[in-house]
Amino acid sequence: MDRKAGNSPNWLQQYFPGCLLPPLEERWFRQAQQRLDSLTKPQGSLGRLEDLASRLYAIRQGQMPLLVSPALMLTVAADHGVAVRRVSPFPQAVTRQMVQNFLQGGAAVNALCACAGMDLRVVDAGCIGGPFPPHAMLRDCRLAEGTDDLSQGPAMSPEMCLKAVHKGMELAREAARQGYSCLAVGEMGIGNTTSATALYCALLGLSPEDVTGPGAGAQPEMVRHKIGVIRQALTLHSTAITGKDPLGILAALGGLEIAVICGILLGAGMERLPVLVDGFICGAAWAVGLHLAPTLADYTILSHTSAEPGHAAVMECLAQGKQAPLLQLGLRLGEGTGAVLAWQLLRAAAAIFNDMATLETAGVSARPGDRMDV
Amino acid sequence: MDRKAGNSPNWLQQYFPGCLLPPLEERWFRQAQQRLDSLTKPQGSLGRLEDLASRLYAIRQGQMPLLVSPALMLTVAADHGVAVRRVSPFPQAVTRQMVQNFLQGGAAVNALCACAGMDLRVVDAGCIGGPFPPHAMLRDCRLAEGTDDLSQGPAMSPEMCLKAVHKGMELAREAARQGYSCLAVGEMGIGNTTSATALYCALLGLSPEDVTGPGAGAQPEMVRHKIGVIRQALTLHSTAITGKDPLGILAALGGLEIAVICGILLGAGMERLPVLVDGFICGAAWAVGLHLAPTLADYTILSHTSAEPGHAAVMECLAQGKQAPLLQLGLRLGEGTGAVLAWQLLRAAAAIFNDMATLETAGVSARPGDRMDV
Repeated sequence: MDRKAGNSPNWLQQYFPGCLLPPLEERWFRQAQQRLDSLTKPQGSLGRLEDLASRLYAIRQGQMPLLVSPALMLTVAADHGVAVRRVSPFPQAVTRQMVQNFLQGGAAVNALCACAGMDLRVVDAGCIGGPFPPHAMLRDCRLAEGTDDLSQGPAMSPEMCLKAVHKGMELAREAARQGYSCLAVGEMGIGNTTSATALYCALLGLSPEDVTGPGAGAQPEMVRHKIGVIRQALTLHSTAITGKDPLGILAALGGLEIAVICGILLGAGMERLPVLVDGFICGAAWAVGLHLAPTLADYTILSHTSAEPGHAAVMECLAQGKQAPLLQLGLRLGEGTGAVLAWQLLRAAAAIFNDMATLETAGVSARPGDRMDV
Repeated sequence: MDRKAGNSPNWLQQYFPGCLLPPLEERWFRQAQQRLDSLTKPQGSLGRLEDLASRLYAIRQGQMPLLVSPALMLTVAADHGVAVRRVSPFPQAVTRQMVQNFLQGGAAVNALCACAGMDLRVVDAGCIGGPFPPHAMLRDCRLAEGTDDLSQGPAMSPEMCLKAVHKGMELAREAARQGYSCLAVGEMGIGNTTSATALYCALLGLSPEDVTGPGAGAQPEMVRHKIGVIRQALTLHSTAITGKDPLGILAALGGLEIAVICGILLGAGMERLPVLVDGFICGAAWAVGLHLAPTLADYTILSHTSAEPGHAAVMECLAQGKQAPLLQLGLRLGEGTGAVLAWQLLRAAAAIFNDMATLETAGVSARPGDRMDV
């Protein structure tokens, strides 16, 4: 993951010629810190809000005020062939049922977006059962009736995988054109913790025992079975894995929603929009994205540490201590729920940066030990 | 802190005859969990948001919808006699300057309240320099020109301390009358980490070395000096400390803002209003409150773990693993900043509880293994 490792191929350029994701320049961070240190508070006392404000400032290249509203949540749904292996306690039909619930406004992500003031777009990346009827909140990005069973063969073809990532990039571009200042990603797909876990193992060289968890609520026996399925998939796709081509690995083990989300993250960065990564599943899309373009990390904000065991470890491994997830609330729902909550911290960071008085204008003693007459 | 310990005096009744803080009934928690488990999500998957929703439901005794808006932040300011001992790198005049900054809208708590949609009231509990000119946002609860130096004698008389707690209770009662559904407390006072640290040591039997930190930014040498000052105060007030009378300890070592905040917390509970406790200083007011009435814990929500070393440890000690602070963002500013951020989580908890569809109404397969036709 070393940006300066000249020996790793430039996958972004190879797959998406002309697409650039330049690293954020150090000078914006320095300028932002100068402003933060001039505000009416002890230096550094707003902790991670200050880091967030600096990142926003660098993403916007010094343009003031910092903007993170309006913001758009893209909740991407798709089905997974591997669900036939009974890796989830819930039936596959729940993917479609939950998309309908999103469109009717009844899911957790609806309640949280409405409460926070974030717009919600539901993306069908390939749910079983055919296209949904048109709906103002829905984007049809269907590429297939779900993926194939990743434990028996590739989840999808390399061509379909590339198309799915492109669709995600287009979604980010569309949101930028529509004037959104911040994006967030969430997901729905029965079986997708199996796909995400396999991706983490393949990309990071981890063992399924260390990363596999109960997902939506599998009992220990089902988790052991899930580990076996993931192990089988990793053996089957060992050529793709040792090839280290991130899109090859994504095609073998991914989900359509994970590929689209990977595209949204990359596309957001290209549009210089900050983008909030939800939990365990979106984290796998982020991991693929980082392997395509390590500078993606500059534009992405990790929302929360999922209750799914292994999430903290893979995030630590990927972010190398630089970017811990913002929230630890024991969430394990997905949909984007953690990202909506984290967006409120991003808004708070922008607010302190934009709106606080400086020590000078407020007449507050700046330098420790200053004597001012009361 | 055992509620059933019949051998500890009922301090609440002793000091505030007729004031009751009954424990929340288990049945409301059970009813709330039933509703949470009926919603369109895997059971327990919203983690701490579910705990918050249950607590809100129990505080409101089953009244729906859960309400946490409108909410009021009470930022209480006062000066500390111990500041003459140079325990803070900032001059004492900063307390007053920051109150002026609050009233002019330039502080972090202003920016965060405005961003989140929380009302702000600034309470002068005793700043040096005389009363502030009248201001719509200001409440004058002045009892003295700051406290006396707690390392040389009691910070205030027992009578003044009791008055300050009463003032806080009145502030909570006033907010309830005005229709607020949720309160939050914050503070300002140069030198108040010294007072708060001394209170933690006195109430919990901790050693100053383990709890004392840099506060607003003291260098290691100043922290060592601060430890010495606190140790001196603990020796001086050993009779009050061994007496275990919480208000006696508060009078000896407290600050006027800490006493008022303690009263706000107790008053909020009596009015059955959930109340958010900010960081290190407000936590000391909470600690005093818990020693007066252990059931205070039922009505209070710990907002965040401060960057001040020792905060995590004292919160763990007080909450006994039941109620960890919600956020870990490295904040160490005070003013109520962490409580505003935590309020947004409380709003989110109310939103999921009030607004999500049930599995039944949304037609989502509830029981693991259900087969539904796609």
